[in-house]
Amino acid sequence: MSIVVVGTVAFDKISTPFGKSDKIVGGAATFIGLSASQFTDRVNLVSVIGDDFPTDFLEGLKQRNINLDGLQIKPGEKSFFWEGKYHYDMNSRDTLDTQLNVLADFEPVLPESYKDCDFLMLGNLAPVVQLKVIDQLAVRPKLVVLDTMNFWMDSAMDDLKKVIAKVDVIAINDEEARQLSGEYSLVRAARKILAMGPKYIVIKKGENGALLIDDKSMFFSPALPLEDVMDPTGAGDTFAGGFIGYLANSRDISFENMKRAVVVGSAMASFTVEKFGTERLLNLSEADIDERIQLFVDLVDFDILLVD
Amino acid sequence: MSIVVVGTVAFDKISTPFGKSDKIVGGAATFIGLSASQFTDRVNLVSVIGDDFPTDFLEGLKQRNINLDGLQIKPGEKSFFWEGKYHYDMNSRDTLDTQLNVLADFEPVLPESYKDCDFLMLGNLAPVVQLKVIDQLAVRPKLVVLDTMNFWMDSAMDDLKKVIAKVDVIAINDEEARQLSGEYSLVRAARKILAMGPKYIVIKKGENGALLIDDKSMFFSPALPLEDVMDPTGAGDTFAGGFIGYLANSRDISFENMKRAVVVGSAMASFTVEKFGTERLLNLSEADIDERIQLFVDLVDFDILLVD
Repeated sequence: MSIVVVGTVAFDKISTPFGKSDKIVGGAATFIGLSASQFTDRVNLVSVIGDDFPTDFLEGLKQRNINLDGLQIKPGEKSFFWEGKYHYDMNSRDTLDTQLNVLADFEPVLPESYKDCDFLMLGNLAPVVQLKVIDQLAVRPKLVVLDTMNFWMDSAMDDLKKVIAKVDVIAINDEEARQLSGEYSLVRAARKILAMGPKYIVIKKGENGALLIDDKSMFFSPALPLEDVMDPTGAGDTFAGGFIGYLANSRDISFENMKRAVVVGSAMASFTVEKFGTERLLNLSEADIDERIQLFVDLVDFDILLVD
Repeated sequence: MSIVVVGTVAFDKISTPFGKSDKIVGGAATFIGLSASQFTDRVNLVSVIGDDFPTDFLEGLKQRNINLDGLQIKPGEKSFFWEGKYHYDMNSRDTLDTQLNVLADFEPVLPESYKDCDFLMLGNLAPVVQLKVIDQLAVRPKLVVLDTMNFWMDSAMDDLKKVIAKVDVIAINDEEARQLSGEYSLVRAARKILAMGPKYIVIKKGENGALLIDDKSMFFSPALPLEDVMDPTGAGDTFAGGFIGYLANSRDISFENMKRAVVVGSAMASFTVEKFGTERLLNLSEADIDERIQLFVDLVDFDILLVD
């Protein structure tokens, strides 16, 4: 099934307690697209870049069958740039520099061929842009997944709530779930957020795994404890890409299959954090992915006879 | 199999963002003993209290077949008291008051009947006290489990390392594992800590579950997302009690069975946090426990065919 992915294609400059990067390629749609493309060849990108963006990277995306018809290239303008520094715990970070550039007045335009997509992945972007994408669709997709963040809760809550009302799955982290709902308990938080529209919530907990919750059930996938964690940037996007890519490939959006998709997304994210930027995602074999998923299977595998 | 439990029996006064307690009964050995006694009737306590301790609580422990022959009662002295306040995230807390009282010069004395115990549970206490208990044993137990905390790493690292060298299982939280090893990656941290003596490490992550690691394998149990979390005090001790109680009852200390014990410990801890102090542990049926364990089974249950 075809996926439309909306999000940033951008530059990042990152420092973590374990190293630092030059100005490298990042962006939500980049990570989502690369991750989803491991599972389906029907990924269609919507984004905007300047003419400073490396063409060989774009070629690499095309070689992975990622359709760039919806990627606007603005002559004479510069791509979005973000610079950040992670704290020792790797769960929090400071933004050192943000240059919106082409993102400042981004008007997404969906090519005709995108408008009947089966799945829509709204990567982290201004809610008003996400709404403009939804408005251009000819048919309601079978599944709409939203990734967003606290920044939009602080600055554009009204628009964000309009988006939330239109999606099937919302993926946010635990702090954001608490902020959005005003509830500390994630169980209560999930219930309130489901009442805002989505049928499913994925609560991303970084190195502490991810929860999938609907109105009846809960499922938890751990994150894999890793030998080296170099750079968490893009982990959430990579998760989302693996999640929706797996669902699109398996053509099954039941809760049971979403559980598998959460594990697959977690496995994909575990690769991203091992290197800076997209480096690890660009050098992944199917065997690597299978092997990694097996580690997730083993990590939580136990059998128990209930005590008498 | 018989278990000897060493730790505090004490008073706590607790405030959390969701409520506050009066001066109530707490202490590591109390939580461990109550939790373990759900699985075996051969729990033997070693601790010290003053004559201010409520006798009806002690009667309650005896009714649960917890042997108090090793519990010293010091006439004219007061029991250990701790007062603390949890922050909003419930993962960190401030100590408001600590009154060592009887704990200041605690000399543990093992009754003869304890000295050939099968399992030894060293609850959180000064390492020098834990060493004195080990020294009084007539035979080396089949399994020695150590619970400790950062306080002893800061103040008594040399003694603590002596204890660590003598145990089979060490249970600490993720920050403590990082502090003890000097490694950020929990995989690397575990490897260094295993090199200090223990064959197994349990890394407790509070609301984010627990990891069991030996030199070959890793296992993860989530914590159960709860409707209400009232008071985390004693959760780690309750975990340890369920862990060792389950192992003692099943007479099996293989890695496979320890995985089950980690789930059982996590299930027991999920009860403790629902109320202040020991209240929930004192009002638990076997059916409650079975039902709770089933929720843990369901929470991580998925099947996946590896992607092709």
